[in-house]
Amino acid sequence: MPTVSVHASQPYEVLIDDRTIDDVGAVARQTAGGTRALVISDSHVAPHYLARVRTSLTDAGYQVADHVFPAGEESKTLATYGACLEAAARAQLGRGDVVVALGGGVVGDVAGFAAATYMRGCHCVQVPTSLLAMVDSSVGGKTAVDLPQGKNLAGAFFQPSAVVADTRALDTLSDAFFKDGAGEVAKYGAIADEGLFARLERGLSRSDADLPAVIARCVEIKRDLVEADEREAGVRRYLNFGHTLGHAIERLSGFTESHGCAVVTGMCLISRAAAAMGRCEAVVPQRIDAFARTHGYATTTRYSADDLYRAALSDKKRQGDTMPVVVAPAIGRCEVVPLSLPDFRTWIERAL
Amino acid sequence: MPTVSVHASQPYEVLIDDRTIDDVGAVARQTAGGTRALVISDSHVAPHYLARVRTSLTDAGYQVADHVFPAGEESKTLATYGACLEAAARAQLGRGDVVVALGGGVVGDVAGFAAATYMRGCHCVQVPTSLLAMVDSSVGGKTAVDLPQGKNLAGAFFQPSAVVADTRALDTLSDAFFKDGAGEVAKYGAIADEGLFARLERGLSRSDADLPAVIARCVEIKRDLVEADEREAGVRRYLNFGHTLGHAIERLSGFTESHGCAVVTGMCLISRAAAAMGRCEAVVPQRIDAFARTHGYATTTRYSADDLYRAALSDKKRQGDTMPVVVAPAIGRCEVVPLSLPDFRTWIERAL
Repeated sequence: MPTVSVHASQPYEVLIDDRTIDDVGAVARQTAGGTRALVISDSHVAPHYLARVRTSLTDAGYQVADHVFPAGEESKTLATYGACLEAAARAQLGRGDVVVALGGGVVGDVAGFAAATYMRGCHCVQVPTSLLAMVDSSVGGKTAVDLPQGKNLAGAFFQPSAVVADTRALDTLSDAFFKDGAGEVAKYGAIADEGLFARLERGLSRSDADLPAVIARCVEIKRDLVEADEREAGVRRYLNFGHTLGHAIERLSGFTESHGCAVVTGMCLISRAAAAMGRCEAVVPQRIDAFARTHGYATTTRYSADDLYRAALSDKKRQGDTMPVVVAPAIGRCEVVPLSLPDFRTWIERAL
Repeated sequence: MPTVSVHASQPYEVLIDDRTIDDVGAVARQTAGGTRALVISDSHVAPHYLARVRTSLTDAGYQVADHVFPAGEESKTLATYGACLEAAARAQLGRGDVVVALGGGVVGDVAGFAAATYMRGCHCVQVPTSLLAMVDSSVGGKTAVDLPQGKNLAGAFFQPSAVVADTRALDTLSDAFFKDGAGEVAKYGAIADEGLFARLERGLSRSDADLPAVIARCVEIKRDLVEADEREAGVRRYLNFGHTLGHAIERLSGFTESHGCAVVTGMCLISRAAAAMGRCEAVVPQRIDAFARTHGYATTTRYSADDLYRAALSDKKRQGDTMPVVVAPAIGRCEVVPLSLPDFRTWIERAL
């Protein structure tokens, strides 16, 4: 089964079906060490997997505590983060001890940020239970919470000791969340691997025998970009393909649009604009649109160019008067096009 | 005037009277860059210096905002930290922009932690206005806030872009705070420089012509220890001389005992114990006690051995069943003695 080795500032391995939920304790013992473990999870995931993870940690010799917060993006706050830190303190974790982040992207982000800053950094094992978290947020060392002023505004770059991705955990994921993750998988194909994109065009389901291999390929792509650029100044920005307008759609919808689905729509929009402006082949928006239509993603949005432009201006990637826009000149290739704000506005109009 | 260059993971300079409060803008421009600046200060310091720092930043071309919180150790909370982050977001700071921490140790710690985590790290210029902050918290990259369960339990290792220490700012510091800082200065002499300790035995006042040189020497000592050991696994622990029992006294007093004064008492206690146990020359506790008596620090404490032991057990430096205790075998030299908990208990009894 696939294992992807990540050589970031702190090297670690992403174990995809190589170890299961029941091996989390053994993996923590081997990679993080320590004597105490705090499992952080949410109200959706804990009923399915918390007991198994606790047992596995106890069997590996840890004194185990847990902290469960309400599921959902609205939990990604400083208040939830503070409660995780206080849970670590109450459980008397030391610097050598381990936080286990058991859940989707929100749990990974919040628990990862708590581990990054508890006593200025303890250990963290990520146990992603959603497809999106497996391919995206468990790799790359980005942790964060939202502020009232915007998403992911407070956080840290922090590498886990290990990532245990058990695809059997996806069985308890709703269809909507699986589709959401598949949107990010399509992004990896579009920016870096035409073969992967072609595989996605045939559709992805949780019973596919090659699902671990598909996830591993996404993790490899992200690994390669992150290793080349851990602090996000260069090629790591390719990962933002579809995200500038995707984030704008998420924000305008009050976050009722899910992330992965908004990213697919963002890829459709920006590719249509890029083709119109001569920055990519016409086949790129055609294939991305066809993928979206076939698998039930929206290819466009009800928001106006004005709304999208204004919502996109607060993007963290904006650099003063320049908006770096990520385009795929061909399926499987990627580049960053720095646009002036008026040009960016024009692109949005051409996209709609 | 003295400038100390620090070659941590992120190199920077500590400018001691080399630049003044009015040069903060120029220093930020030169070392941090960016277009927006947020000055974070507290209710004691802001009335004296905020306007000058704002003017200097405006003159250097920054769009300037500020955030002032109530002075005092009780402000060192996640709530204050969150308010600083939200102030940064409201001021629309980007990753390339700069937080200016204007104040004593609490401001430096809280604002530094906010800068370390805002958008996963923006720039920070530290402008310490207390003697303690100049010699201690502005160097070494430790930022933190307290949790209800203990001091400094959440934070980050984060290097500033520059430190501007203007000793004229000490004129507005109370005598009690100056004495508090002088206690940490004595610690630097005791662990690393017999000549500096002898200088301190003659007393330190804010009108001394060699005050910038004394501060620079402390910063150099800390710089050398931190550079050798940025993540605090080895010699950096020398900086904790007097701190294990000093922290216990602070905690037992409900933090009515100030940090620097408690550290002097902690140095007296641990040196008395070390001499009794044959781990340092008899002259060490004699000279430290004489320094304390001459300059008005307590040489012992009203708390019992039981109280001190229990309070010290929650120290972050404790490693399971071992308490690493820092001793000065001679004035100007230092070592870490790992004690079993029963031995540590015995040392405390010998100290009293």
